[in-house]
Amino acid sequence: MLKREYSAFIGCDAEIEEADAVIFGAPFDSTTSFRPGARGGPSAMRRESFGIETYSPYQDSDITDKKIADAGDLELPFGSPERPLAMIEETAQEIFDAGKRSIMFGGEHTVTLGAVCAAARRWPDLRIVHFDAHADLRDEYLGVSRSHACVMRRCWEIVGDGRIYQFCIRSGEREEFRFAAAHTKMTRYSFDGLDGALAEIGDAPIYLTIDLDCLDLSIFPGTGTPEAGGVSFQQMHEAMLKVCRANVVASDLVELAPNLDASGTSTAVACKAARELILAVTKEK
Amino acid sequence: MLKREYSAFIGCDAEIEEADAVIFGAPFDSTTSFRPGARGGPSAMRRESFGIETYSPYQDSDITDKKIADAGDLELPFGSPERPLAMIEETAQEIFDAGKRSIMFGGEHTVTLGAVCAAARRWPDLRIVHFDAHADLRDEYLGVSRSHACVMRRCWEIVGDGRIYQFCIRSGEREEFRFAAAHTKMTRYSFDGLDGALAEIGDAPIYLTIDLDCLDLSIFPGTGTPEAGGVSFQQMHEAMLKVCRANVVASDLVELAPNLDASGTSTAVACKAARELILAVTKEK
Amino acid sequence: MLKREYSAFIGCDAEIEEADAVIFGAPFDSTTSFRPGARGGPSAMRRESFGIETYSPYQDSDITDKKIADAGDLELPFGSPERPLAMIEETAQEIFDAGKRSIMFGGEHTVTLGAVCAAARRWPDLRIVHFDAHADLRDEYLGVSRSHACVMRRCWEIVGDGRIYQFCIRSGEREEFRFAAAHTKMTRYSFDGLDGALAEIGDAPIYLTIDLDCLDLSIFPGTGTPEAGGVSFQQMHEAMLKVCRANVVASDLVELAPNLDASGTSTAVACKAARELILAVTKEK
Amino acid sequence: MLKREYSAFIGCDAEIEEADAVIFGAPFDSTTSFRPGARGGPSAMRRESFGIETYSPYQDSDITDKKIADAGDLELPFGSPERPLAMIEETAQEIFDAGKRSIMFGGEHTVTLGAVCAAARRWPDLRIVHFDAHADLRDEYLGVSRSHACVMRRCWEIVGDGRIYQFCIRSGEREEFRFAAAHTKMTRYSFDGLDGALAEIGDAPIYLTIDLDCLDLSIFPGTGTPEAGGVSFQQMHEAMLKVCRANVVASDLVELAPNLDASGTSTAVACKAARELILAVTKEK
Amino acid sequence: MLKREYSAFIGCDAEIEEADAVIFGAPFDSTTSFRPGARGGPSAMRRESFGIETYSPYQDSDITDKKIADAGDLELPFGSPERPLAMIEETAQEIFDAGKRSIMFGGEHTVTLGAVCAAARRWPDLRIVHFDAHADLRDEYLGVSRSHACVMRRCWEIVGDGRIYQFCIRSGEREEFRFAAAHTKMTRYSFDGLDGALAEIGDAPIYLTIDLDCLDLSIFPGTGTPEAGGVSFQQMHEAMLKVCRANVVASDLVELAPNLDASGTSTAVACKAARELILAVTKEK
Amino acid sequence: MLKREYSAFIGCDAEIEEADAVIFGAPFDSTTSFRPGARGGPSAMRRESFGIETYSPYQDSDITDKKIADAGDLELPFGSPERPLAMIEETAQEIFDAGKRSIMFGGEHTVTLGAVCAAARRWPDLRIVHFDAHADLRDEYLGVSRSHACVMRRCWEIVGDGRIYQFCIRSGEREEFRFAAAHTKMTRYSFDGLDGALAEIGDAPIYLTIDLDCLDLSIFPGTGTPEAGGVSFQQMHEAMLKVCRANVVASDLVELAPNLDASGTSTAVACKAARELILAVTKEK
Repeated sequence: MLKREYSAFIGCDAEIEEADAVIFGAPFDSTTSFRPGARGGPSAMRRESFGIETYSPYQDSDITDKKIADAGDLELPFGSPERPLAMIEETAQEIFDAGKRSIMFGGEHTVTLGAVCAAARRWPDLRIVHFDAHADLRDEYLGVSRSHACVMRRCWEIVGDGRIYQFCIRSGEREEFRFAAAHTKMTRYSFDGLDGALAEIGDAPIYLTIDLDCLDLSIFPGTGTPEAGGVSFQQMHEAMLKVCRANVVASDLVELAPNLDASGTSTAVACKAARELILAVTKEK
Repeated sequence: MLKREYSAFIGCDAEIEEADAVIFGAPFDSTTSFRPGARGGPSAMRRESFGIETYSPYQDSDITDKKIADAGDLELPFGSPERPLAMIEETAQEIFDAGKRSIMFGGEHTVTLGAVCAAARRWPDLRIVHFDAHADLRDEYLGVSRSHACVMRRCWEIVGDGRIYQFCIRSGEREEFRFAAAHTKMTRYSFDGLDGALAEIGDAPIYLTIDLDCLDLSIFPGTGTPEAGGVSFQQMHEAMLKVCRANVVASDLVELAPNLDASGTSTAVACKAARELILAVTKEK
Repeated sequence: MLKREYSAFIGCDAEIEEADAVIFGAPFDSTTSFRPGARGGPSAMRRESFGIETYSPYQDSDITDKKIADAGDLELPFGSPERPLAMIEETAQEIFDAGKRSIMFGGEHTVTLGAVCAAARRWPDLRIVHFDAHADLRDEYLGVSRSHACVMRRCWEIVGDGRIYQFCIRSGEREEFRFAAAHTKMTRYSFDGLDGALAEIGDAPIYLTIDLDCLDLSIFPGTGTPEAGGVSFQQMHEAMLKVCRANVVASDLVELAPNLDASGTSTAVACKAARELILAVTKEK
Repeated sequence: MLKREYSAFIGCDAEIEEADAVIFGAPFDSTTSFRPGARGGPSAMRRESFGIETYSPYQDSDITDKKIADAGDLELPFGSPERPLAMIEETAQEIFDAGKRSIMFGGEHTVTLGAVCAAARRWPDLRIVHFDAHADLRDEYLGVSRSHACVMRRCWEIVGDGRIYQFCIRSGEREEFRFAAAHTKMTRYSFDGLDGALAEIGDAPIYLTIDLDCLDLSIFPGTGTPEAGGVSFQQMHEAMLKVCRANVVASDLVELAPNLDASGTSTAVACKAARELILAVTKEK
Repeated sequence: MLKREYSAFIGCDAEIEEADAVIFGAPFDSTTSFRPGARGGPSAMRRESFGIETYSPYQDSDITDKKIADAGDLELPFGSPERPLAMIEETAQEIFDAGKRSIMFGGEHTVTLGAVCAAARRWPDLRIVHFDAHADLRDEYLGVSRSHACVMRRCWEIVGDGRIYQFCIRSGEREEFRFAAAHTKMTRYSFDGLDGALAEIGDAPIYLTIDLDCLDLSIFPGTGTPEAGGVSFQQMHEAMLKVCRANVVASDLVELAPNLDASGTSTAVACKAARELILAVTKEK
Repeated sequence: MLKREYSAFIGCDAEIEEADAVIFGAPFDSTTSFRPGARGGPSAMRRESFGIETYSPYQDSDITDKKIADAGDLELPFGSPERPLAMIEETAQEIFDAGKRSIMFGGEHTVTLGAVCAAARRWPDLRIVHFDAHADLRDEYLGVSRSHACVMRRCWEIVGDGRIYQFCIRSGEREEFRFAAAHTKMTRYSFDGLDGALAEIGDAPIYLTIDLDCLDLSIFPGTGTPEAGGVSFQQMHEAMLKVCRANVVASDLVELAPNLDASGTSTAVACKAARELILAVTKEK
């Protein structure tokens, strides 16, 4: 399913075979209920990545010193999420089977489910670290169970109680917060408790899923369901680097909707977050 | 399934029971392959309808002199088109069973399939008059058969050879034009031959489906797949009035994507087209 | 009240005293009922006039060969139209008293009333030639009688029956069309009959008021109440030049709302129309 | 004057008679001097409220557990503010007479004057708590005394010295700051001193008026006069909840201009602020 | 200098060596005087080309049946045009030396000069057919002689009197029109006289340069210097096909500025024009 | 070269001769590599300055109490930066020779080089205080040495080691950070160390150059190369006031690109920063 695709994310020009980590795009947004457009996220990130540098002064590290491949976007059909999720799962599995780390660019948050399926099969003791404004713990949404609003609930069905660590959550139904109290480890509004969570996780394999709307909508307006009261870029950045010091085997950045990003800055934020993530997950430990 | 919904299209305040024609919105765009947003069409049309008048100087007729109900938008789930199409079909059938005309506001063009199913069941000799930039005659698109790019092909499976009259078509694969030559009556680029088509149709019941991208993209930029070289508003208006002098039992206006309508004028065009359509289909003959 | 203001319309750098014609802006839009913003019209026209040339190949004439002053914008208060209309009337009268032609840039169409008051006082046999999409003949609108939707009705109260020639009208209440049949000379949709009207007018003094929404909304999206089915720029241009061959003593261009002009093209259209108008009204006869 | 209007703010579906609090919109912006558009605020808030939840994790409270009515928008004429202010005053009085709390969505800040008139008549010891970037204490602005820039000055004429508590103020003429020093209690730039103010106010009835431009323009760009250096959403939220623990009898949220809200996030902020305000003012004490 | 670059224009996937025609982008706009952005033209065209079909019903021809290579964008430095023009010239020469046709996507119109230099060296009897709103015949502009406003003057210095055929011209200084009368063959406003021009040219090699602002600004708002009163897409399309029936050895499409294309339709127009041009210049004669 | 130009920045109406400080615009952006538009910065700032007050509550000071002249924009040619830089240098020298302070509004950052040349000639012990997201220390960029990405490197060639103090830097190539370690005094991410720097500088003359993209992109989206993780307006404001307590002889504000400022707020930020800068540099010490 992997096809070497065009215009890579800046500096990510390695061949897939030789790469330590593989980026791929999952341009799906058909279950988006409010403002569609996340399908355009991965291609916008590649295009606008040329507005940032490959070098990170934060990590004193440069993408061009690494071997990162960008496999381009999957050609996902629109409409029902079944086939797209299967294609994502298969792609992630190929990457894992080749002993590489996967970094997926969404797309709506539903795409995480495909990658988590593959990861949980390979690493049965998988933990999920989840940055988001929304709990995403509904059992169904408008009669659909595989939807962006339900994705963490579906993931929980795979990894089970106490293995999902949620941060920055500031929106959901009352029932979702009740569910979280019983089944996940949720921090509201901030990254408080991240150190403790990471101590608890230890060396266990981590799937890190970052819904970029965890950021305040002032920094990240270009997303389907913007929610006031989020964290700053610096806070998210620091948290991301912390998590990546643990054993992150797979990760994603989702919910950039460039069509809603009137000044183009949300894409710039996503690109910088992606660079930092790429450098952090491939850092020698 | 019909629920009396909020803020009606201007002047369309009749109760459903007493109405001669019933408007409803089908806010679905999950199979849109290029630029999503048509889901916002019907609500934008209601909202912006207050920028036009209820009176048409062209027809010397006023919506407020008629009994038109606006049943609001169906609450369609996103993702797979199966359930939305079933809901649309059921709604159209309710309207037909009550002896009223239906006027559907899309949504992507796929929604037409639901209403055509209901219409063809009630009127077995149904003809379809189709204004569009695109042939919409693919057998499948990205592996999906119920898609906006395939909708006329699916309608053809229902009504059969020679019963679909297509106008203004200026885009498609070679295969679609071949299919049209064998199975539909297609006029490229213009409304040439409309008089002959209407003579041929006579009193047979007509489903009139207007993909607003038949208009030139200068007049109607706010649509998912804009295509240069279209007709003027005046040309479409004249053609629409002609068709409505025949026996139009059901109709739709689809593919307004207000999020792509930077100056708000596409919505104004859609509103004026809707007013003219409402007045024309309910005209005493 | 006239104050020599900043950045003139391109080429219009003459001192007011020596000028043959005086431009002034009337940045008022407080009674706009649908989409405000026409207040920004005159300043946008000045600013963007540097994107066109001072030379017209159509008229083989150059603004820099003329003496045109741009008196800048009046500082009109917002809210009630009473004081703004008085200020406009006083300004126009100053210009007329100095034996110059006035060219006003609106603002919403209501501003025309102030200038027409001054013109009708000076030239009791004044005719009004009116290009517009809307009849503007309501007696009141939302309880307000001095409103953009009523401006031609108020002008009629001043100049009387048969002295207002309306062209391109394609929107209004039924009552407005009835009123027009009895009291004004209205051509719907086009400039048909313009030659006859000008023959009828002969040498009588003309106030030419151009609501730019007479243009099709494809050419002129940046306006408060866009209406499909309008004339082309070429048609309006030709009509404008024809009228200016008669005795145009005062004129205006109104209803550019640059905040609604997403691509900036409506302002470019208004600037070109203004250049052509300036050259045409000051042409030696 | 109250008419049960369409599409309510999310969850606010109670009948007016049975409601504990009544929302109404005051879509007026005719005196806006810089960038108009606040007239669209209330309808945009209703429409986009479906992007947030009815449940607040901050207050562990859900709008659907309350009885809140949304009376829709008043049909205010444009132009002079006299009649709109009278209509707002009458509406607020109806709500107060029925023993309910009022929550008004603006519109420009001038609308507050109508509601304060009604509130001060009913509660002679009324205090006003005012969140804003601008002092709004001018005696007149461009010759107009009932203007958004003068609204707190007019309110002071009603409630008198020492009864207006202003927070976050960071813009005004020197004279306004002098006036404030003598007649109101003003905190610049922040909510410092809010606790002391509330202690001082005690159980006295409070009118809480929130000009959303108190927020930093990064969070709330969609407003007529954006001003750098504002507070964060979290700071405003905390301050709002504090004030609502006192005796808030009436409140408003003003100056959202959705036409200036390119990414739609300002409307999302206003919706979340509105939900929190609704829940806080109706909380059992 | 040619490097096989990423994401080709739809269907143009041939290797350069085997191709009959080679597309390349010249993303330069540093001398743009009014509204910059044409640098983004070629990449936007590639990206949005997936919104049109590879098949043309007008020509009954499909890009996928041809061998067309897309060599991607040249990496041109910004600032002075000297080096970019040299790089363009060298690239065009490579393509001509390989016996292929070149199709350049601009960039501002200045880029044409580089390609014309190479073409005139190879074909000393070169004719230039020029579609544009602007004469582009200034001797210098703001002290710069190699500028978009001077490009045809520079080309005239290369090819000499009577060899440049200009169409649709509707803007320029008086001096430019005088120059044209003496040195080029110019048709104002339209394509009148194109048949005669082509008869005159006969089999001589043609460089066809299409400044897309020849189109009316309603159809093509996304350009640096929009000018009202242009031709329709259908008119330009017909003229382009006519010219391509003669011996077009090189061609370009310039002045798409996608950042000014609020609804994305100008890019759609450019893509369709490009498809038609590609098919027409490679047609068997 | 100075010409008294139109519409001054709010309150800056003094004649140049009598002024204590002179503002001028340098509307050049031809070497901008990513997103052009900074040419529009100075005129947008003048226009939108009417949305802020002349009075600063922070400094209790009013522009109208000062003598500030606004000399308008230089008429810079586009393309190569050589001539524009010479014109800027000459202008700055005129201002310095007249014993006045200069305040330049950019334009891209390259324009700083012209003003620094003039300042360093007059004040050989000049220090540069530099607020920016980007190090701007490349030796060349795309083969060009006088480019926005190289401007501080060129300035270093003029003022030498240890005389450039850089703050908020968060982007650059590894090599630029190495260069900074050896040759400039750089603080990353923040204004830490500003007090020490100012103590070190003492009474030496300072050129203060503020690239507004030092601000977080949430506050300042309207710029060519937005970079996440910047400082708040309050932080920049405080730092600016501190620097201005020392001996600032010349200053600039650069990189506002109003065409990228979808909600108009970046221009509002730039205006407020400009007002505060004007008041601070002209404060009696």
